Amino acid sequence: MTVSKPLSDLQIATSAKMKPITEIAEAANIPLEAIEPYGKYKAKINTNLIQGTPSGKVVLVTATSPTPAGEGKSTVTVGLADALKQLNQNVMVALREPSLGPVMGIKGGATGGGYAQVVPMEDINLHFTGDLHAITTANNALAAFIDNHIHQGNVLQIDPRRIIWKRALDMNDRALRKVVVGLGGPGQGIPREDGFDITVASEIMAVFCLATSLENLKERLGNIVIGYTYAKEPVFVRDLGVEGALTLLLKDAFQPNLVQTLEGTPAIIHGGPFANIAHGCNSIVATQTARKLADIVITEAGFGADLGAEKFMNIKARQGEFAPSAVIVVTTIRALKMHGGVAKSQLSEENVEAVQNGLPNLAKHVDTVRAFGVEPIVSLNRFITDTEEELAVVLNWAKSINLRIARTNVWEEGGKGGLELAREVLEVLDQPNNFSPIYEISDSIEQKITAIVQKVYGGIGVQFTDEAKKQMAQIESFGWDMLPVCMAKTQYSLSDQPKLLGRPIGFTITVREIIPKLGAGFLVCLTGDIMTMPGLPKTPAALRMDVDENGEAVGLF
Amino acid sequence: MTVSKPLSDLQIATSAKMKPITEIAEAANIPLEAIEPYGKYKAKINTNLIQGTPSGKVVLVTATSPTPAGEGKSTVTVGLADALKQLNQNVMVALREPSLGPVMGIKGGATGGGYAQVVPMEDINLHFTGDLHAITTANNALAAFIDNHIHQGNVLQIDPRRIIWKRALDMNDRALRKVVVGLGGPGQGIPREDGFDITVASEIMAVFCLATSLENLKERLGNIVIGYTYAKEPVFVRDLGVEGALTLLLKDAFQPNLVQTLEGTPAIIHGGPFANIAHGCNSIVATQTARKLADIVITEAGFGADLGAEKFMNIKARQGEFAPSAVIVVTTIRALKMHGGVAKSQLSEENVEAVQNGLPNLAKHVDTVRAFGVEPIVSLNRFITDTEEELAVVLNWAKSINLRIARTNVWEEGGKGGLELAREVLEVLDQPNNFSPIYEISDSIEQKITAIVQKVYGGIGVQFTDEAKKQMAQIESFGWDMLPVCMAKTQYSLSDQPKLLGRPIGFTITVREIIPKLGAGFLVCLTGDIMTMPGLPKTPAALRMDVDENGEAVGLF
Repeated sequence: MTVSKPLSDLQIATSAKMKPITEIAEAANIPLEAIEPYGKYKAKINTNLIQGTPSGKVVLVTATSPTPAGEGKSTVTVGLADALKQLNQNVMVALREPSLGPVMGIKGGATGGGYAQVVPMEDINLHFTGDLHAITTANNALAAFIDNHIHQGNVLQIDPRRIIWKRALDMNDRALRKVVVGLGGPGQGIPREDGFDITVASEIMAVFCLATSLENLKERLGNIVIGYTYAKEPVFVRDLGVEGALTLLLKDAFQPNLVQTLEGTPAIIHGGPFANIAHGCNSIVATQTARKLADIVITEAGFGADLGAEKFMNIKARQGEFAPSAVIVVTTIRALKMHGGVAKSQLSEENVEAVQNGLPNLAKHVDTVRAFGVEPIVSLNRFITDTEEELAVVLNWAKSINLRIARTNVWEEGGKGGLELAREVLEVLDQPNNFSPIYEISDSIEQKITAIVQKVYGGIGVQFTDEAKKQMAQIESFGWDMLPVCMAKTQYSLSDQPKLLGRPIGFTITVREIIPKLGAGFLVCLTGDIMTMPGLPKTPAALRMDVDENGEAVGLF
Repeated sequence: MTVSKPLSDLQIATSAKMKPITEIAEAANIPLEAIEPYGKYKAKINTNLIQGTPSGKVVLVTATSPTPAGEGKSTVTVGLADALKQLNQNVMVALREPSLGPVMGIKGGATGGGYAQVVPMEDINLHFTGDLHAITTANNALAAFIDNHIHQGNVLQIDPRRIIWKRALDMNDRALRKVVVGLGGPGQGIPREDGFDITVASEIMAVFCLATSLENLKERLGNIVIGYTYAKEPVFVRDLGVEGALTLLLKDAFQPNLVQTLEGTPAIIHGGPFANIAHGCNSIVATQTARKLADIVITEAGFGADLGAEKFMNIKARQGEFAPSAVIVVTTIRALKMHGGVAKSQLSEENVEAVQNGLPNLAKHVDTVRAFGVEPIVSLNRFITDTEEELAVVLNWAKSINLRIARTNVWEEGGKGGLELAREVLEVLDQPNNFSPIYEISDSIEQKITAIVQKVYGGIGVQFTDEAKKQMAQIESFGWDMLPVCMAKTQYSLSDQPKLLGRPIGFTITVREIIPKLGAGFLVCLTGDIMTMPGLPKTPAALRMDVDENGEAVGLF
């Protein structure tokens, strides 16, 4: 390992020699007539022209509970695919699209890192092919149609106090969390309380990611409940008659996007709900298209296995009717040390005991994967300050419980740094597994949530606020309880208390609110103080951003 | 003329056989390496790779004051270019990008009509290449940076009551005109009054359209005044340090878009400010790029000559340092009848007297064009119900005042229906003209507005509200009065009273507010009740929209 100053992700990405996207498509067996180029290095895939059945094996990449130290999940996803390509496998990556909010706020970019990136990284991190903008537009068109309906006479008798449809922006903007709209007198609409969610938390994003066809997309959009009448009956999008217009706004975006990794592995990037407030996986259309084209599809779910992976298994895999064949749990020595009680400023110092103390977080996520009947493989993702003693703690522990583990060094080495992991994956893929979601759709809402709390979070049970109880009763009375649940929980802790790192025990989860999302086809359960619209930090990443004299991006990380 | 049921614009557009955009580019002398395809029929042009000086002659298409009868200005713009191409001229179209708000609301589409359209019309009318979304995003990112700055300690001492930067959506949404943001307690920002404009009214749209280079774009973005401090000093975007990030968000959008007409004439469509609340022309970058590539550039300015054309002459041409070589004033018998006092429901009946009575509106716009030193040509755009007697009224009047006039029938016949107009244009282009804006930058604000009211609107003078007087004094005290003015006025009347059709006389204009737009480089003067955020009608166009079983658009007009 070198200690000279490394290149930034953007420097590595922009100095890369990309192949024309048509060449990537050809190598991936995508017929050229199915390719709609967006510039030279991005394309939409016309899925109507992709033949075959989706039979590729799915490898899910998840992680320990995220820490400010960083785990490198996207990096491992990309590096693993590149490694499998080096081993002559027919492999494809399926990732989520970044949200501009966090890009401008904290992250600066979300396309992997170092020599394990998808490119063109600056395009993907900014507007890409416009999918998130189309979703934002559909979301806000629906809001405008609702307010206009009320303003124009309110034939449907929508109660303005009971509208649950919120507006959305792909932005971190805390000032829009709670607003009052319709002020200014009778010509300006009906005054009412409203709020904005970040686009990735919009139900339209969830619908977009879970729809299996354009027809299914339209049907789901029609099923969205936007609020209730004065008589407390639900009002659906189909009652407003605008599901056709919303589908029209989304039809191009609904086609998945093709790009490449730095090593030329084909990557589909499509859809991007957050995993703490939504279901956290790329679109079903993207995964299924990749499964038609490749033998192995490496995909990622957001945050730790308690969030993205749980929803991947219980919601997406169930809906898409496929089973993950292997699950990677990414962790780092630094992350384990934070779970073991070390402050961020002390992470560079060797601390074998802290690594040991942090292991229970990893152990819980490994157990979670096993609870779904799938074989976990730990990716111990190298960082320059790791010591051999620290690494040995994790490797020995894994050996002691017969757990597959591989060191990865993909940030620095690209696919070569993922070969050890790739070989473990290939061994697992050769074996059958017993994948099964951990609850049945026919279970009661309380049973479903309890199953997640006990089997995934490691808690002892669930409490409901009075509000949540009322909502649960209402959902049952409408017959909407036969849906999976989508937990909205802090990503930092297995519990609903963000500061409880490591592996908390004996805790209960408090469900504050249960919101039916009939378009997405799940019930969102809000726990703790989950924000559906993030804020910007004191020094936003945007302050570093610029365009240089050649018109090239500066300051994306 | 046929009386069988004509095809809809969408039917004509989608049944057209388009040429690949690379072929259009080649015919237009655009090097292939300068083309970034967006699908097969749209492309961005890398203007850094377009050599030469902008020397093409500019033909501006404007119109009489718009009526619900429709004039067909975009249709004539496209048809005229196609006619010139039929006459073997090296010609290019430069148009504005449609705004989704009106598309979903009333218009359903804004790409010409019949056999004089730019295509692919459904793409252009929906998200196109994402330019408006990029502008919306930059607008709202700036708003988020402002509120975040205040929330994080407010080093700049921005007075939340004096923020003039509003949020924006590309949507017709009256409920967002006046809002209160930042509610919900200390963690959710600072409560304050705010509002949303439609994106086409955003100063970022104006900056985008008037910037001459990416560097100039960044400089202009830095110059935007977002509000005032507690000490009433202006706060600029450059004080927040985010002009680099905003430029980064706009850098791809800033490249102009290439499409084609139904007859394969190259068309650049880029930028799209409204003409009643902004300056109403496509981007300078688009016009100048077209002028490098073609001998003749046909371009359009919004609404009647009192709005779009006035701003084209006084703002855009001055800023872009070019002169229009000819100006077309489009009108129809139906429009003249409405200006002559006929109700919309009676337009199909012959009414020679009403045509006569409507002529003064046309006459005023013709005089306006002459006031700028440019030769006007009237396009009398045919409609199926026009009678020979009605047409004769206009033709004889034109002859009597030595005014060039040509009948156009481009909706039904495409370029062939524009040949008579094209021949008139070629004659005018051969002659020198004496173009000059009608006021000097060094004139006082009051002098500039008075010149427009008297020479363009035909009114007698200007009144200022107390608020406007205060603002004018403030603008002068900051030394910002050496800028052109951008009038915000109803499009329906030459006056500021929307119901005064025809040619009102003896009226004064009341200026309610004067808002400095230092990024755009003009002073917006609000008159009457000009809305910067439209509303949806009782039955929005969106209700007709859908996607058919082949995934094709339905219900765009």
